[in-house]
Amino acid sequence: MGAANTYEALTVETLPERLKGVAALAAQVGEDASTWRVEEIGDGNLNLVFIVSGPGGKAIIKQALPYVRLVGDSWPLPLYRAFFEYHALTRQAARDPGAVPVVHYFDETQALIVMEFLAPHVILRRKLIAGERVEGLAAFLGCYCARTAFRGSELSMQSGDKKTDVALFAGNIEIPAITEALVFTDPYFDAEMNNQTEGLEPVVARLRADVGLKVRAQKALQRFVSNTETMVHGDLHSGSIMSTDSDSKVIDPEFVQYGPMGFDIGMLCANFLMAYFSQPAHRASGLDDYQAWILAVIADTCSTFETEFRHLWKTERTGILYPASLFEDQGHDSTPACDAVLAGIWRDAWAVCGIEMHRRCLSLAHNADFEEIADVSLRARLEARNLMMGAELIHTAEEISGVEAVCALARSFNGKDVS
Amino acid sequence: MGAANTYEALTVETLPERLKGVAALAAQVGEDASTWRVEEIGDGNLNLVFIVSGPGGKAIIKQALPYVRLVGDSWPLPLYRAFFEYHALTRQAARDPGAVPVVHYFDETQALIVMEFLAPHVILRRKLIAGERVEGLAAFLGCYCARTAFRGSELSMQSGDKKTDVALFAGNIEIPAITEALVFTDPYFDAEMNNQTEGLEPVVARLRADVGLKVRAQKALQRFVSNTETMVHGDLHSGSIMSTDSDSKVIDPEFVQYGPMGFDIGMLCANFLMAYFSQPAHRASGLDDYQAWILAVIADTCSTFETEFRHLWKTERTGILYPASLFEDQGHDSTPACDAVLAGIWRDAWAVCGIEMHRRCLSLAHNADFEEIADVSLRARLEARNLMMGAELIHTAEEISGVEAVCALARSFNGKDVS
Repeated sequence: MGAANTYEALTVETLPERLKGVAALAAQVGEDASTWRVEEIGDGNLNLVFIVSGPGGKAIIKQALPYVRLVGDSWPLPLYRAFFEYHALTRQAARDPGAVPVVHYFDETQALIVMEFLAPHVILRRKLIAGERVEGLAAFLGCYCARTAFRGSELSMQSGDKKTDVALFAGNIEIPAITEALVFTDPYFDAEMNNQTEGLEPVVARLRADVGLKVRAQKALQRFVSNTETMVHGDLHSGSIMSTDSDSKVIDPEFVQYGPMGFDIGMLCANFLMAYFSQPAHRASGLDDYQAWILAVIADTCSTFETEFRHLWKTERTGILYPASLFEDQGHDSTPACDAVLAGIWRDAWAVCGIEMHRRCLSLAHNADFEEIADVSLRARLEARNLMMGAELIHTAEEISGVEAVCALARSFNGKDVS
Repeated sequence: MGAANTYEALTVETLPERLKGVAALAAQVGEDASTWRVEEIGDGNLNLVFIVSGPGGKAIIKQALPYVRLVGDSWPLPLYRAFFEYHALTRQAARDPGAVPVVHYFDETQALIVMEFLAPHVILRRKLIAGERVEGLAAFLGCYCARTAFRGSELSMQSGDKKTDVALFAGNIEIPAITEALVFTDPYFDAEMNNQTEGLEPVVARLRADVGLKVRAQKALQRFVSNTETMVHGDLHSGSIMSTDSDSKVIDPEFVQYGPMGFDIGMLCANFLMAYFSQPAHRASGLDDYQAWILAVIADTCSTFETEFRHLWKTERTGILYPASLFEDQGHDSTPACDAVLAGIWRDAWAVCGIEMHRRCLSLAHNADFEEIADVSLRARLEARNLMMGAELIHTAEEISGVEAVCALARSFNGKDVS
């Protein structure tokens, strides 16, 4: 790579020759590049992803593309997002050890990261569509969200370190801009890149006529773009999680930015709720049990988040916010302060949750849970439930009593004909 | 200055020799430095301030000191704050033309700014203590706060420009850290640098025993450190405003940072409220009229802010937030959205207002309005009213119906014996 001073996309054919000098890669797969097998597995929109296999083992090579694959080279995207992904991965690894793939090597010019090959992990979304369970999933995700939220904030970090980090990640402009438009705004008007299932027209018309709903969605956008509480993953859906039957990892943090502490867990819950609402199209046998399992994952993820956040509050509150000098040192219990912070997190989370449920059915990037439902009228019926529950969450985000109320709401919409 | 590669504090004696080559200064005061008269007028804590007079006119030289003057060289402060002051002044001048002194020259190494000499302006706080009125003050300040809030936010700015600016100002670490500690936290416990008027002990004990109050103050701190809605002045009190009888300017933005849109106007109102509460010690004759004038300034500043903000909302909403594509283009009035944004601004503003009222009586940096009251028991009585109203504002920030309610609250505390 020494001579390669300009970016060039890798191919299955050129990869061994171009990366044979990268010691960190050779250490994973073997010294002799002529023995390497290379397979391209990228199914994302923004990147090339290769598995390199050799006598020593396997590694993943992820390289950013200079455009959005889904729409071709008409939508250019800066390569520097690999730089932010790399810095996100190192911070996530420090804040929740073992939660993300190990990074072996990073090349900024080539916008590529050599990282741990996860096996036999598959994308969680595939497992949810297939009706498979993952042991420990809620505990893992609840801890991951709580630890990254808490440890990336001024509840924990020193102020100067956090501001330096905010400045670094403020350079990630174009990728968060996708979220800003596609997630928060496009669902609520007839945007150019939108697409939606036939039959949803009456429901969509109701949503778009609801001025109060749009105000609330834009308030959430205002918080997303001007709140730097913590470093968020920024795209934590079930396609950004890889799982075996009992182990999970979080991948693909290229949408990283500083944002509200409730952002990741809100988006995550939305994707579980969409898995839940889509289930009637994917199975008849065991439907009730599997839907109940998904709701249990949501409930347990949120309760683990609360438990872990409160634990970190007690044991790692070393930042300038809510200092012990004001509370414990004065003989004052700081639980009311932790309650207030958590209330703010959930208010943000439930609004984001509802918005994510909307954008995945109405904006550009849909998800397989619904997209793979061949029966269009069934798909519309299931998506309609999801859309109307999303609106309810956005409208009531401040008043929701807890995740059990959200699960109860999901159950009530699950049987409804709202189209 | 060409050869001066290291910082050195100016003196009255060395200034002409050191700055004689600065064309922008010579253009203001005259080419021949031997004719310059130099006077040091700095009464601040962080800087040297000189007036240079010559046959051509006058100019101000402001140079940062590497420590806090108030406490001596035991509290070092980075010189780079002059860099942030310079960048703040240029942005404020663009966002509200004429509101801040014209910058003639900036030298980063020497941490100095050559700027417009304002005459016959004096510090507004002196006028308020002296019982003088300033025509147009509320209109000026309301417009200044609304324009800088709106035009520095993503209601107006393009997202990439704003993120670049957030990254730039995130480098201003130590100065905002003073606000974080001295304003938001120190008042609420027995912090080392605190001082308070004798006789306030019972009131202070009540405030510090109020856990809910401390939670709210820290919530406001959380928003201050992790909200980048707009570029705030950061220290907009009556000592950062210079006025004649009918003209005003905003000075000294070295505490600049990105922060909540309600921060500046909240701190500003607090300083007017402290002027209001301190008046009985400064005059007998005309007291009621002058206090009524101060409350009218508060009311008119806030109503001008609202009017100007709503005007900018209609005419300059060119950012990604609350876009016309979602509202006006759909035949939907965006007034409910503007109402929601303003509600958020006032919620932040009244909390900050109450906190500022506390810190100026309890933390390190007091203000002359109260400090110059020689009668300690009278001072304590007036400060107690101010402290208790501050607590009321912090507790009720979300529910306050408007500035008239704040003025009514001030009137009700003005006659009270709360010590």
